[in-house]
Amino acid sequence: MKLESEKKLEEFKEYMRKLEYLNSAIGVIYWDMRVGIPKKATAQRGEVIGYLSGEAYRLQTSDEMKEYIDYFSTIEGLDDVTKSMVLNAKKDYDQTKKIPEHRYKEYVILKSNSEVAWEEAKEKSDFNIFKPYLEKVVDFSREFIEYWGYENNKYDTLLDFYEPGITVEKLDVVFGELRDAIVELLGKIKESGVCIKDDFFKKDFSKESQEEFSLYVLNKMGYDFDAGRLDESVHPFTINFGNKDVRITTKYIPNEFRSALFSCIHEGGHALYEQDIPDELQGTGLAAGASMGIHESQSRFYENIIGRSKAFWTYFYPEAKNRFPQFKDVDFDEFYKGMNAVEPSLIRTEADELTYSLHVIIRYEIEKALINGEIEVKDLPQIWNKKYKEYLGVEPQNDAEGVLQDMHWSDGSFGYFPSYALGNLYGAQFLHKMEQDIPNMYDDIKQGNLDGVHQWLKDNIHKYGAVYKPAELLKMVTKEELSAKYFIDYLNKKYYEIYNLK
Amino acid sequence: MKLESEKKLEEFKEYMRKLEYLNSAIGVIYWDMRVGIPKKATAQRGEVIGYLSGEAYRLQTSDEMKEYIDYFSTIEGLDDVTKSMVLNAKKDYDQTKKIPEHRYKEYVILKSNSEVAWEEAKEKSDFNIFKPYLEKVVDFSREFIEYWGYENNKYDTLLDFYEPGITVEKLDVVFGELRDAIVELLGKIKESGVCIKDDFFKKDFSKESQEEFSLYVLNKMGYDFDAGRLDESVHPFTINFGNKDVRITTKYIPNEFRSALFSCIHEGGHALYEQDIPDELQGTGLAAGASMGIHESQSRFYENIIGRSKAFWTYFYPEAKNRFPQFKDVDFDEFYKGMNAVEPSLIRTEADELTYSLHVIIRYEIEKALINGEIEVKDLPQIWNKKYKEYLGVEPQNDAEGVLQDMHWSDGSFGYFPSYALGNLYGAQFLHKMEQDIPNMYDDIKQGNLDGVHQWLKDNIHKYGAVYKPAELLKMVTKEELSAKYFIDYLNKKYYEIYNLK
Repeated sequence: MKLESEKKLEEFKEYMRKLEYLNSAIGVIYWDMRVGIPKKATAQRGEVIGYLSGEAYRLQTSDEMKEYIDYFSTIEGLDDVTKSMVLNAKKDYDQTKKIPEHRYKEYVILKSNSEVAWEEAKEKSDFNIFKPYLEKVVDFSREFIEYWGYENNKYDTLLDFYEPGITVEKLDVVFGELRDAIVELLGKIKESGVCIKDDFFKKDFSKESQEEFSLYVLNKMGYDFDAGRLDESVHPFTINFGNKDVRITTKYIPNEFRSALFSCIHEGGHALYEQDIPDELQGTGLAAGASMGIHESQSRFYENIIGRSKAFWTYFYPEAKNRFPQFKDVDFDEFYKGMNAVEPSLIRTEADELTYSLHVIIRYEIEKALINGEIEVKDLPQIWNKKYKEYLGVEPQNDAEGVLQDMHWSDGSFGYFPSYALGNLYGAQFLHKMEQDIPNMYDDIKQGNLDGVHQWLKDNIHKYGAVYKPAELLKMVTKEELSAKYFIDYLNKKYYEIYNLK
Repeated sequence: MKLESEKKLEEFKEYMRKLEYLNSAIGVIYWDMRVGIPKKATAQRGEVIGYLSGEAYRLQTSDEMKEYIDYFSTIEGLDDVTKSMVLNAKKDYDQTKKIPEHRYKEYVILKSNSEVAWEEAKEKSDFNIFKPYLEKVVDFSREFIEYWGYENNKYDTLLDFYEPGITVEKLDVVFGELRDAIVELLGKIKESGVCIKDDFFKKDFSKESQEEFSLYVLNKMGYDFDAGRLDESVHPFTINFGNKDVRITTKYIPNEFRSALFSCIHEGGHALYEQDIPDELQGTGLAAGASMGIHESQSRFYENIIGRSKAFWTYFYPEAKNRFPQFKDVDFDEFYKGMNAVEPSLIRTEADELTYSLHVIIRYEIEKALINGEIEVKDLPQIWNKKYKEYLGVEPQNDAEGVLQDMHWSDGSFGYFPSYALGNLYGAQFLHKMEQDIPNMYDDIKQGNLDGVHQWLKDNIHKYGAVYKPAELLKMVTKEELSAKYFIDYLNKKYYEIYNLK
């Protein structure tokens, strides 16, 4: 009996490997479409992705898959990995099986074309180019929710894909606390009248010098270039095909030193997670991050908690000064504060650490309303601009710096945005525990040694892949439930000091 | 009845499209493996290619495929395209079906790893790194020939894949004529005592300036960069995923102006062919060149007959002089002759137009002997070096400039090399006809206008894809059979003038 189930498990893993192979192939083609494809080839390549996705769909919803799931669902005493593997496969099976295959294939092709249309629309700053595609993407999302079903709120169904267990009800509370705290802190900062200079970051920085410095920092972070590479794309992203090929992209802005650098540190945080996934999880469907929120906790942890810290720049500031004559007359205090200047702005990815979560909350509110049919695609630019004025006091002058700035909606990733803010909350909770576990943490960082931090994340988070659900993992690591407290404390402590608040 | 067969044909084409999708995916991954993959990822990616190739194998050898072939084989009065489509599918079916699936899959994975080993071996100039892989590749080739069967010569079976209808018997004759003619001409050149200077091509040329000039020439050739791109790899190649994405690679050598340039013109010739394949041939299995030899006739036509001609450089020489101060004191006659200097050398891809075919004939002889078991892999470096000394009077000092120089054996492409010399023969036959059809051909080229040449190739060759077999196509275009005469005449005329022979 034992032998039979072991043999069956090997077969199941071999079957899952096929899915991984297909997803690897789709991934490489996707990467190529964003980084290097010739213009005329996008439609043909979209068909290739459509075909391969159809094959993946078939594997995910086959009778063979159902047999494996049914077989292992009856077996008692499975280890954590196998148990999670089966649950995970079952969730995917149920999710996918409920969508008619031809609709799924049409959707995949649409997404691929929609992404290209978004890119063109953004380039030309014309929402109308993107609108017909986005309308179809939204229609698909609404249609799919009907197949999947929902309880209290349609949007919950989408949230659950990215962050199992998170609902609109819970999110309204946690995001409410976070918003109140940020608004309060933002008010104090405005009142303080303190003005932080950061014009020295807006001088002219050549692409080559920015790239070199980004590569240097990624190396220090422990990003393995023998298992990855850095390229350029319109919107930075991380993509991986197994744990041995984890690629990141960035976008260089000549007169904004911080943009490419922090996007590299951010994507580098994602990439370390994927590079650290153990080989043993190949073929289980669990060789990935625990959730989008946990993934974002890693990227935002590196980008902000580490990358914008005093300790980090204690080491990297002299190096930056060596490489960039633009910083000749900038002292450490100015440099550090300039990295952390608070300035409500239009572009999420360029936002400061404090106001960033407000960008996310705007998208969360729009998505919730859009998915529930309370607003329509055609109204988005207007609603978007109104909310930006209301929450952040700034107003986009065109679609490119407004509603078209993110690629997420082009591929139908509704429900993803909240992960960014959840990542902030998780990250601060992890930090609290890490500070207890590594007493000399900040001294190491000051020496440019980021290995302790990396090792802690690897041992406590990365090595588990997707074996544990986010809430379980959080509990295992911190012994606590999700809470906004630690992130709010962190923000207050940091910005009280920077802005001399009382 | 008519309607039934039309419907069936649509289904058959849809089925063939799936094969094209898989081959596109394999192609993109293959390109990525040669151009950009991180070191640690090659093994995992090899598995992905293995899986996708297995799927392609299944489609190629399925009962469904057999049904289509059987169905259409009984139908009379098919048009040329459909007839060729069915014959082509049948040939592939028979070829593939005879190999046990597990052996085929093992072979695909081996090839992928063998290519990587070859690259490392070449880098370290150590044949021993490559030897165990090549031995396995050769064993597979010999094993496969047993499955496929053969009549007079085992090597004929491999030749037939690249150039249907060509046999060792025929090749020994044509290559014999060619070798005799080249040896005679080479003797006269040596006797003449004329020494052509080409040291100005061996000055220092930055990678950037070489790349810019190559891009400029490719543009003038009519290569469509909206349906292609130029990258770097260890060995230059052309790869396409459909007709809308035809990529070429090159390798820049700082102190050899001609190397990257002529490899770009060569690959550009292949690429024009693929970009010109009509959309209508998608889904027929015929959206490709007629044969490897016909393909090489296009690349070598551009590289040598056009690219090393007086007419071509009449236009491009002033442009080269403008861009490269290295040519300040070089007059047109020196420049043109320098492009065509004859100098027996070690590296095939760097060989001059005249001696090139001798490099090919060496490989042909080695392959013939290797496949027939008359020599073994371990003996290759020694045999290689001996033949080079005997035929060309030069001797490799290490494996990198000897037996390891070409990638072709690493992926088991035995039987391919003869195509290069066949391409020379076809090309000269096409030229003879083209000169009759376009009386002002050389005047146009002198004006930098290559459109007439391109259009002629498109109308007479490219637009047919693989609908006609090489011998049929040659007959259609030139009304003649394969012959070495035109190429020999061309060589004599060209080199008699350059070397003032009598």
